Amino acid sequence: MSEAELPDIDEARETGLDEDDRLKPAFVRAILDAVEAGDNEGANALVEPLHAADIADLIEIAPADMRASLAAAISERIDGDVLAEMNDWVRDALVDALNPRQLADIAGELDTDDAVAIIEDLDEEDQRAVLRALDPDDRAAIEEALSYPEESAGRLMQRELIAVPEHWTVGDVLDYLRADDQLTTDFWEIFVVDPAHRPVGTCNLSWVLRTPRVVSMTDVMKREQTLIPVDMDQEEVALRFQKYALISAAVVDPSGRLVGVVTVDDIVHIISQEAGEDALLMSGAGDGDINEPIRDSYQARVRWLIANLFTAMLASGIIAAFGGAIEQMVALAVLMPIVASIGGNAGTQAMAVAVRALATNQLTKSNTLRTVRREILVALMNGLTIAVLLGSGAALLYASPMLGMVIASAILLNILVAGLAGVLVPVVLERLEQDPAVASSVFVTMVTDSMGFLAFLGLAVLSGLVTMG
Amino acid sequence: MSEAELPDIDEARETGLDEDDRLKPAFVRAILDAVEAGDNEGANALVEPLHAADIADLIEIAPADMRASLAAAISERIDGDVLAEMNDWVRDALVDALNPRQLADIAGELDTDDAVAIIEDLDEEDQRAVLRALDPDDRAAIEEALSYPEESAGRLMQRELIAVPEHWTVGDVLDYLRADDQLTTDFWEIFVVDPAHRPVGTCNLSWVLRTPRVVSMTDVMKREQTLIPVDMDQEEVALRFQKYALISAAVVDPSGRLVGVVTVDDIVHIISQEAGEDALLMSGAGDGDINEPIRDSYQARVRWLIANLFTAMLASGIIAAFGGAIEQMVALAVLMPIVASIGGNAGTQAMAVAVRALATNQLTKSNTLRTVRREILVALMNGLTIAVLLGSGAALLYASPMLGMVIASAILLNILVAGLAGVLVPVVLERLEQDPAVASSVFVTMVTDSMGFLAFLGLAVLSGLVTMG
Repeated sequence: MSEAELPDIDEARETGLDEDDRLKPAFVRAILDAVEAGDNEGANALVEPLHAADIADLIEIAPADMRASLAAAISERIDGDVLAEMNDWVRDALVDALNPRQLADIAGELDTDDAVAIIEDLDEEDQRAVLRALDPDDRAAIEEALSYPEESAGRLMQRELIAVPEHWTVGDVLDYLRADDQLTTDFWEIFVVDPAHRPVGTCNLSWVLRTPRVVSMTDVMKREQTLIPVDMDQEEVALRFQKYALISAAVVDPSGRLVGVVTVDDIVHIISQEAGEDALLMSGAGDGDINEPIRDSYQARVRWLIANLFTAMLASGIIAAFGGAIEQMVALAVLMPIVASIGGNAGTQAMAVAVRALATNQLTKSNTLRTVRREILVALMNGLTIAVLLGSGAALLYASPMLGMVIASAILLNILVAGLAGVLVPVVLERLEQDPAVASSVFVTMVTDSMGFLAFLGLAVLSGLVTMG
Repeated sequence: MSEAELPDIDEARETGLDEDDRLKPAFVRAILDAVEAGDNEGANALVEPLHAADIADLIEIAPADMRASLAAAISERIDGDVLAEMNDWVRDALVDALNPRQLADIAGELDTDDAVAIIEDLDEEDQRAVLRALDPDDRAAIEEALSYPEESAGRLMQRELIAVPEHWTVGDVLDYLRADDQLTTDFWEIFVVDPAHRPVGTCNLSWVLRTPRVVSMTDVMKREQTLIPVDMDQEEVALRFQKYALISAAVVDPSGRLVGVVTVDDIVHIISQEAGEDALLMSGAGDGDINEPIRDSYQARVRWLIANLFTAMLASGIIAAFGGAIEQMVALAVLMPIVASIGGNAGTQAMAVAVRALATNQLTKSNTLRTVRREILVALMNGLTIAVLLGSGAALLYASPMLGMVIASAILLNILVAGLAGVLVPVVLERLEQDPAVASSVFVTMVTDSMGFLAFLGLAVLSGLVTMG
C-alpha cells in the first residue's frame, strides 16, 4: 500500500464515524447509494479512509442482499484483514461467493491463524481447492493447523515466530533479525530454545533493546514461562492469558517442542465472546447473533422454548391439583403468578452471579459451601423484605390477615429455594462437566415456578383458608 | 527477587493447581491449616512456587475471617502484583487492614495504573496519608491520575513510556535505551513525538530490532495511530482496543500532548468485565460478585425484586379483571401461567441477543429496522411451533377445540410481542442514553406477563368460551 492510499483515521472520524467509532447511518447510506447507482468510483472514494475493521462493519451493516455487490464494488479493499475482522456468518456468506483462486490469494497473505479461521469454515471440497491453490509452505502450515481440534490452541496460534539458540548474545540476535528478510515483522517476544527446539525462556523485546550486545540471551530471558499445550481449549487459553496478564505465549506440542505462538489480539475476541455468551446461553438463545441465519436462530431458540413448555406444564399440573381450592377463592389465581414471578427473578439473579463466578474461576470446590451459605443469607434478607411488602398488601387488599400470612410465607420460602437453586444448578452442571450457563435457566425457572405455586396454594390449604375442594 | 525464590510454575502445577489452573482444595486446606497452627514457615514453603495471580486467588478463596491472618503469615509475598490481581472487594478489606506506610511501600513499586487502582478505593483520609508517604515523583504521578474521572483512560494509563524526538535514528534510540537506568523496562511500542510532545507516529519494537542503526525513526514508525483521549470512558477504550487489535496505545490530553500509554493487559480485565456484566445487569444482580459484602448484594438485588413486585401486580390486576371468567372455568387459571412463562423466555432470548449486539456495536441505527424485522420472523416461527404443540395438547386434554384455539392464538401473539419488546426495550434504553442491559429484563417481563394473561383470558371471553362473569 503506497503512502497516498494509507487509511487516514482522522479523516474517517470526521466523515464516517460517530463519537463511539460506529459508522454513521448517513455515511453507510451514501456508500450503498453509490453502489446501487453503479458509481464504484464514488463508493471507493468514501471507503478509502476506513480501517479494515470499519470495512468489515460496513459489510455487516449492509442489508444481506446488497453485501455481494458492495464487496464487488470495493473489491480492492476486501483483503484478509477485512475478512478476519468480519462476523462469522457474514464472512461465510461472502467467502461462498468468492472462487478458490481468489480465496487462496487472500489466505496466502495472512498469518496462519487468520487464514485458518477463514478456511476452516469452508466445506471440504472448497477447502481442498483453496489449499491446492496455495504456496506449498503456506499449504503445509495451514494443513497442520487444521489437523488440531477446532477451538484449540493449535488453530489459534501463528507459526511465524522468532526462536534463537541458548548460546546467542543480544548482538547475535540483532544481526540475525536485521539480516534475514524472510522473518516475520510483527512479534512481541523472542523465544530461547534448546537444541531439541524446546523453549527454555522468553525475552520481552524491551529487555533486548535495553541490553548491551555482548550479553548472553540466557541472561536477559525470563526462565519462568507460561507454555500453552497445542491441544488446549481456547477458553482455557483465554483464562490463562487473563490470569497471568500475557501479551504472547509459546505453544508446545506433546514432546515440549515450540510449534507456535498465541498473541493477545487473538485472545481478546475470545475473552469478549466467552464472557458475553453466558447471557445468551442462559436465556437459551444459543450463539445468538443478529447476523445468524433465521433458520439457525429458530432451531437454537425453539428447543429451549419447548423445554420450557414441559417445565411450565409441570407447574401447571400443580395448579390443576389445587383446582378445587381456586374455585373457592379466585384471589388465589390472581396472586399466585406474583409468587412465581418474583421467585424466578431472585433465582435468575443468584444464577447469573454463580455462572459468572464459575466462568472466572472464582467459585471452586474450596468455597462452594461458603457461597451457598452467602446466597441463603442474601435470599433471607430479600425474602423477608418482599414478604412484608407483599403480605401486608395482600392482607389489606383482601381484608384477610390469613391470606397475607400465607402469601408472605410462600414468597419467603420461594425466594430461599430460588437462591439455593440459583447456585446449585450451575455448580452441579459444572461438576457433571456441562456448561453451567446452558440449561441453568430452564432448571431454575422450573424449580421457582413449581415451588411458587405449590407453596402458595399448599399453604392456603394447610392454613384452612380453602379446602382441596 | 533472587534466582532461588523465583516462582516455579511447573512445581506449582504439580502440587497446587488442577488442570484448569485453579488451586486444588486440598492444597488450599493445607496452607490454611499451617496458618491456623501458627506454622508460618510451612505456609510460606507451600506458597513459594505460586504466581502473584495464584496468591491473589488463594486469599480470595480463604474464608473472609481468615484472610487477614493468612496475609500476615505470607506477608513477604503480598506485593503490589498480588494486590493488583485481587478481586476489588477482597482487596479493599485487606488494604483497610494495612497502615498507610505499608501501603505506600507497595504503591511505590507499582506502575501508576496499578497504584491508582489501589489508592482510588481508599477513603480520603487514608488516601492523603498514603500520598504523603510516597516519593514526590510517585506522588505527583498518582495525584494527576486521580484528577481524571473514575473509569477514564487517565486512571487506566501508565505514565512510564518511551518517547523519542523525530530526528533520532534507530541507533540513537538503542544508545538511549541502553544508557539510561531510570527508564521503564517493560514497554511494547516507542512513540515518536514532535517538539510539543505530540505523538506523530508509533513504532513496534520488532520493527526497531529489524532495522539498521542508521535509519531514521520517522522511516520506521507508522503514522496512522489510534490515539486515546485522556478522558475517554474505559469501556470505549476497550472497544477501540478490540476493534483495531491494539497491544498498546498513546493517551493524549486535550491539547494533543502524549501523557501516557494504555496496554492491552489492563484492557483484558475490562473487556471480560464489561462483556460478563450484562448477564448480571439484565437479571438485576448489580455488580454481582461472590465476594461482594452481603449488605451490598441485598441492596442491589432487592431494588429489582421490588420493581418486579409492581410489574407482577400489574399482571395480577389483569387476572383480577377476569376473576369471574376464571370462576366459570378453572382450566384458565391452570393454563395461563404457561402463556406468560414461555412469552417471558422468548422475550429474554431476543433481549439477550439485542443487548449483546448493542454492546459490541453490531446493532446501530443503520440496521435497527432490519433487526426488528428479523426478530419478528424468528418469533413467528417459534410462535407457530409452540402454538401447534400447546394448542393441540390443551384441546385434547380438556376435550375442547375452542380452548386449544384460544391458547394457541394467545401464545402466538405473546411470543410475537415478546420478540418485539426484546429488541425495542434495549434499543430505546440505549437511545435514551441508559445502559440497555440494566432494566431491560423488568420491562420485558412486564410486557410478556401482562400480554400473556390479557391475550389468553381476553380471547377466552371473546371466543365465547366464558363470559366476564
